[in-house]
Amino acid sequence: MATTIKDIASRLGVAVSTVSKGLNGAPDISEDLRQLVLDTAVEMGYKTKKMRKEEHKKLVIFVENMEFADEEDFGHDLILGFQQMAYRDNWTVNVVRVNSNFQSREKYSTYMLKHGYSGAFAMGFALQDLWMKQISKTDIPTALLDNYVPLNRNVGYVGTDSDEGINLAVKQLVKLGHKRIAFLNGSPNSWVSDRRQEAYENAIKENGLELNPALTAYGYYVADSARYHVPGMLKAGATAILCGNDLIASGVYEVCEKEGLKIPEDISVIGFDDIPLATEISPTLSTIRQDRLELGKCAYFTLNSLIHKVSISKTMLRPEFIERESIAKASKHSALKESK
Amino acid sequence: MATTIKDIASRLGVAVSTVSKGLNGAPDISEDLRQLVLDTAVEMGYKTKKMRKEEHKKLVIFVENMEFADEEDFGHDLILGFQQMAYRDNWTVNVVRVNSNFQSREKYSTYMLKHGYSGAFAMGFALQDLWMKQISKTDIPTALLDNYVPLNRNVGYVGTDSDEGINLAVKQLVKLGHKRIAFLNGSPNSWVSDRRQEAYENAIKENGLELNPALTAYGYYVADSARYHVPGMLKAGATAILCGNDLIASGVYEVCEKEGLKIPEDISVIGFDDIPLATEISPTLSTIRQDRLELGKCAYFTLNSLIHKVSISKTMLRPEFIERESIAKASKHSALKESK
Repeated sequence: MATTIKDIASRLGVAVSTVSKGLNGAPDISEDLRQLVLDTAVEMGYKTKKMRKEEHKKLVIFVENMEFADEEDFGHDLILGFQQMAYRDNWTVNVVRVNSNFQSREKYSTYMLKHGYSGAFAMGFALQDLWMKQISKTDIPTALLDNYVPLNRNVGYVGTDSDEGINLAVKQLVKLGHKRIAFLNGSPNSWVSDRRQEAYENAIKENGLELNPALTAYGYYVADSARYHVPGMLKAGATAILCGNDLIASGVYEVCEKEGLKIPEDISVIGFDDIPLATEISPTLSTIRQDRLELGKCAYFTLNSLIHKVSISKTMLRPEFIERESIAKASKHSALKESK
Repeated sequence: MATTIKDIASRLGVAVSTVSKGLNGAPDISEDLRQLVLDTAVEMGYKTKKMRKEEHKKLVIFVENMEFADEEDFGHDLILGFQQMAYRDNWTVNVVRVNSNFQSREKYSTYMLKHGYSGAFAMGFALQDLWMKQISKTDIPTALLDNYVPLNRNVGYVGTDSDEGINLAVKQLVKLGHKRIAFLNGSPNSWVSDRRQEAYENAIKENGLELNPALTAYGYYVADSARYHVPGMLKAGATAILCGNDLIASGVYEVCEKEGLKIPEDISVIGFDDIPLATEISPTLSTIRQDRLELGKCAYFTLNSLIHKVSISKTMLRPEFIERESIAKASKHSALKESK
């Protein structure tokens, strides 16, 4: 039998009118009590008429640690692709920016229920996020970009096959004679960064090269990180630097310029993503392309399947290695030695 | 510039009329010559008007090593799910049974071109199949059930996450006190069997159990295989047997009956797939369920994406562990010892 307002009231030991106020967001009860009412309603599977009416109409895209407002931004086309598909099926799609404060204010399921969302596409979440822990056990259909949750039939992963992308890039560098290939990865504590780290290490080993800890670091997807890590990589003899995204690569460009190193003559640089920046900088950046528009579309397909009880675990797109001006044959000596 | 009949004729050193006869299947040229004309046409990227007209209308499902005619059969719902989705988009779908002879008679791409198919869904292929080698380099959109091809943007994988399924099953057995869990896998030389073997070994290790080669064997998806392998597994102390599919599990039932062992009191048995047979045998079979209707639908989604140049690498469904009568607490001694 469906849960009623009475059930919630008796569980909480409050009046039915109080529950009703809490559910309908009336201003004359405290925020704490309203929250408790909502949390309990979710726990007991209660849905208001408004929620029921709206629940097949609204989806939400949560964005964290990621820009999307400009066409240049990584998240832009992801959202566009998702919306293009969702609108065909007459969904309304809201985009909501979240951070850790936001996540600590309200439980994931409570937020979803309160706003009558049938499902969410979450982009840019970190493994230690409060909501990620809640999502790992949620019964609300949720598609995750670059994050994988085991054993939950309501949650699906969408992403690009990093393994294949990094493999293609490393192979191309090896073909050009590079032996000391550094990797300036994205953020630690991220599922996708872990996969890429593994992929990098496998590719290095498969190509008969030596793994050197001095050649890897985390760049947090920030251009500035290059300043801290690139000098050490050059000292360790790197002749090529593979980056966790194109922004990091642009930071590597700046550091190399300061060190008096020419790209690609002295050092080869490869990005990840292929955002517009990659063709705007000089020399143009070779990169591992993710088709973000298609990723967004696949995210919708995955979410829509989950909503219809088709439990997709993973949808993965193939990356493409885009060769531009930033790579060349390895110089005989390491980049730094040659430049000194 | 597009290839013309003349180009093909001059490449082959034959008359234009001969090429035309070959392409149109006229009866007055030899089969060998017709084949050569077709192969050359494919190689040179030539398409007849008929091919061009039909190519956006027809898809094909190739089936090898798999039954599908009856509702009971593993392949039945896979085909149904695929067709349900494809018909909505006005595709014609043909189902073609293939074997190694069939594959050696004609190249994959030639067959596809000749029949004007825009794409294929291939079920049940083995890694060493001639066509699998051709598919690994094909430029024709192809979705593969349970087979993965690296680096080819025209080929996508569809399957169930075996890892998660086997994990769920082994965990449940461990909870019931089982320590010697055998695995009677499907066919060797199959991508999915390799994944499952890995998954089994990981699950055994993760649960702190000992890997024992005497507890694993390949059952080729055939019930009869149990006769050869189960006695040895029992001798090695197995108290539970995990099977590559439900058919193999039914074979295990027979062997256990002959050995005087009761399921589940003396030995626990788990299948894979959840075909109708699983509830028809006694005791009813616990199994790792693959939703074949949904797999078929995902195969269509993957193929349709590939046709539209969206390069999906993998679409994976979650399995479900269905607990029925065939498993119980491990007996104190190994099954065989108790029965003797």
